[in-house]
Amino acid sequence: MQPGEFRLIEVLRSALGETDPDLLVGMGDDAAVVRCREPVTICSDTLVAGRHFFADVAATDLAWKALAVNLSDLAAMGAIPRWALLNLSLPAGQNCDWGLWVEDFAAGWRALAKPSGLRLIGGDTVATDGPLTLTVTVLGAQRDAPMRRDAARPGQGVWVSGCIGDAAAALDIAWSARALPARPPAGLSTQAQWALEQRRLRPTPRTALGEAAARCGVACAQDISDGFVADLGHILQASGVGARICVDDLPISVALRPALGEDWEAWQRWPLTGGDDYELILCVPPELEDTLRGIGRETGVPLTRVGEIAPAEVGLELRWRGELRRIDGHGGHQHVF
Amino acid sequence: MQPGEFRLIEVLRSALGETDPDLLVGMGDDAAVVRCREPVTICSDTLVAGRHFFADVAATDLAWKALAVNLSDLAAMGAIPRWALLNLSLPAGQNCDWGLWVEDFAAGWRALAKPSGLRLIGGDTVATDGPLTLTVTVLGAQRDAPMRRDAARPGQGVWVSGCIGDAAAALDIAWSARALPARPPAGLSTQAQWALEQRRLRPTPRTALGEAAARCGVACAQDISDGFVADLGHILQASGVGARICVDDLPISVALRPALGEDWEAWQRWPLTGGDDYELILCVPPELEDTLRGIGRETGVPLTRVGEIAPAEVGLELRWRGELRRIDGHGGHQHVF
Repeated sequence: MQPGEFRLIEVLRSALGETDPDLLVGMGDDAAVVRCREPVTICSDTLVAGRHFFADVAATDLAWKALAVNLSDLAAMGAIPRWALLNLSLPAGQNCDWGLWVEDFAAGWRALAKPSGLRLIGGDTVATDGPLTLTVTVLGAQRDAPMRRDAARPGQGVWVSGCIGDAAAALDIAWSARALPARPPAGLSTQAQWALEQRRLRPTPRTALGEAAARCGVACAQDISDGFVADLGHILQASGVGARICVDDLPISVALRPALGEDWEAWQRWPLTGGDDYELILCVPPELEDTLRGIGRETGVPLTRVGEIAPAEVGLELRWRGELRRIDGHGGHQHVF
Repeated sequence: MQPGEFRLIEVLRSALGETDPDLLVGMGDDAAVVRCREPVTICSDTLVAGRHFFADVAATDLAWKALAVNLSDLAAMGAIPRWALLNLSLPAGQNCDWGLWVEDFAAGWRALAKPSGLRLIGGDTVATDGPLTLTVTVLGAQRDAPMRRDAARPGQGVWVSGCIGDAAAALDIAWSARALPARPPAGLSTQAQWALEQRRLRPTPRTALGEAAARCGVACAQDISDGFVADLGHILQASGVGARICVDDLPISVALRPALGEDWEAWQRWPLTGGDDYELILCVPPELEDTLRGIGRETGVPLTRVGEIAPAEVGLELRWRGELRRIDGHGGHQHVF
C-alpha cells in the first residue's frame, strides 16, 4: 500500500522538524510562527522533473540541489539561513515507494540544511498526475544591509567566487549519455568528468561568503544561476551601468580547463552562458577589495577579480586573448511557454 | 509568440508588486527582504489542476481560491496578512496565451489581496510538461499569541463560523455536470446551486475573526479545509481530548438546507466530511463566549456553538435528531500516492 500524505509529512517532521528557540509554532499546525529580530529575507524556487532535473535523479541529490539553489539566493543577499518550507507534488500511481523516497530526500536535505543552520517548519505534500515538482522556500535573517542588483557603480571591481562552467559542462555530458543533443567537453578524464558532475549535482551555496561580504559593506551581489553573462546582465540592467570583463581571468576549474583551450565556442557555452554554478558575482569598490581578499582567505572560498563596472555606454565588453569578443545568441536561459 | 518567463514576472510585478514601508527589497532581486516587529506566521499550499481544481477554472477564480486557502490558515492562527510569494508552473506547448492568463490571474488575486492588506513580494514562474500547478506562500504578523491545535481543553465550547457543507455540495454538482461519479444535492433551485458554487469558487477567509479571537485570548482554532469531522479530529488528537457535537446545531446555509432534511448520508457527506469550506473551528472557554459573540457581531461573521470539548475517553460523540450517530468511513480526505 502506498503511504498517505500524513505519513509522508510525519517522515519529514521526524527527520527534519527540529526545535529552535525562535520557532514558536512548528510543523503540524495550520501555519508556523517564527521570531526574528532582524529583517527577514525570503525567496522560493520551483523545480520540475524533466525541466530542471532528470526524473531519475537520486532523491538525496535532488534534495541537496533544491535547497542549495535557494540558499544561494540568500547568500547573494548576505542573509543568514534560518527556516525552510518544502512543497512536494509527487506523481501518483507510479511504482515508487514514496515513503522510502521521502526518507532519502530527508537525508539529502539534512546533509546541507544542518551545517547551514536551516530548519524545516512547514510546506505541503500533494499528489500530481504530472512530473515530480517541488517548491522550496527559505527564510533568512538579514543582519546587514542586503546586497542588491541595482547597487553596481562604475569603478567597482567585478569578482567571482569559486569556479564557473563546471555544472554546464557536466550537463552536456549527462545529456550526451542520454543520447540527447549536447556538446560534451572533449578529452576529459573520467575523474575530471566525475568532478564536474559533483558540481552539477551538489552545488555549494556561498553562505558564509555572502554574509561576510554584506557585513563588510559590499552593496551589490547576485548569484550565478542563469549563467555569468545573463546574471551579470541583470546587475548591469538594474544598476544602469556597463562592465569590462577579461574572460581570460574567469576562474576555471582544473577539471574543466583542458576542455576550453583556444575554443571560443567552448568558453561561451560553459563559463560564460552555462548556468547552475551558484557562485556569487560581487561588485566591490576599490577600498573594499583588500577586505574581500581577506574574507576569501577566512571562508576558504577562492575569489577572482574578472573585470570592473563601467559607465552604461560601454555595455558589456568581453575581452578574450587580447581581443574584444561577442556572445553568439542571448546567453542565459529562461522558460518559454 | 508565447511570452517568456521574464515577461510574465513583469506582468505580476506591475499588477501586484506594490510598495510598502516594511518591504526593504521587493520583487526583482534574488530575494525579498521584509521588516516585521511581531513574530512572523508562514504557511504554504500547493494546488494541482485535476486534483484541487478543474483544469478549465477561470484564472480569476483560481487566483482567489489559491490565496484564500492560505489566508484561511493565517486566520486560524490569528495572524494579520502581510506578504505573499507565488510559484506558478505553467503547462508548456498549450494553445493558451499565458500573458493574458497571468493578467486575469493577477486581477483575481488583487480582488482578495488588496482588502486583505497582502502584497506580492516574490516567487517563481516555470514551465511544466504536467498540469498547471501553483504554490502560494503567505506571511502574516502575529501580534497576539497564536491559536493552536493543541490547546483545546474539556469544558470549552466548540464554535463554527459561517456555514459549512456548501463547497462540498457544489463540488458534487460540478462533478455531476462533468459526468463524473457524484451525489448532487436534490431539489435545489438554480439560484441555490449558484450560491453554493460561489462558496466553492470564492471562499471567504475569516481574517478579521481570527485576528479578533486571538486578541481576546482564544487559544485554540483550526480552519475547515479537510472537512469538519477531520479538522475537529486534528484538534482532538493534538490536544488529547474528545468532543460532544450536536449535529443539528451545525450552521447550514439557506441554499443547502433543503437538500439535507432527514437524510443522514447527506449530513455526513456535506457538512460533516465535505471539505473546502474555509470556516474556522474555535474552542472557547466559557468565560470568553460572550466576548466571542460580540466579535461575531463586530466582524459580521455568524458564529454558532455546536458542542463542547470533553475528556479524551468520550472520543468524538455526534448527536443527530436525539440519537448518537457514527460516521461511515474515515471522514476528510488526504492525498494517497
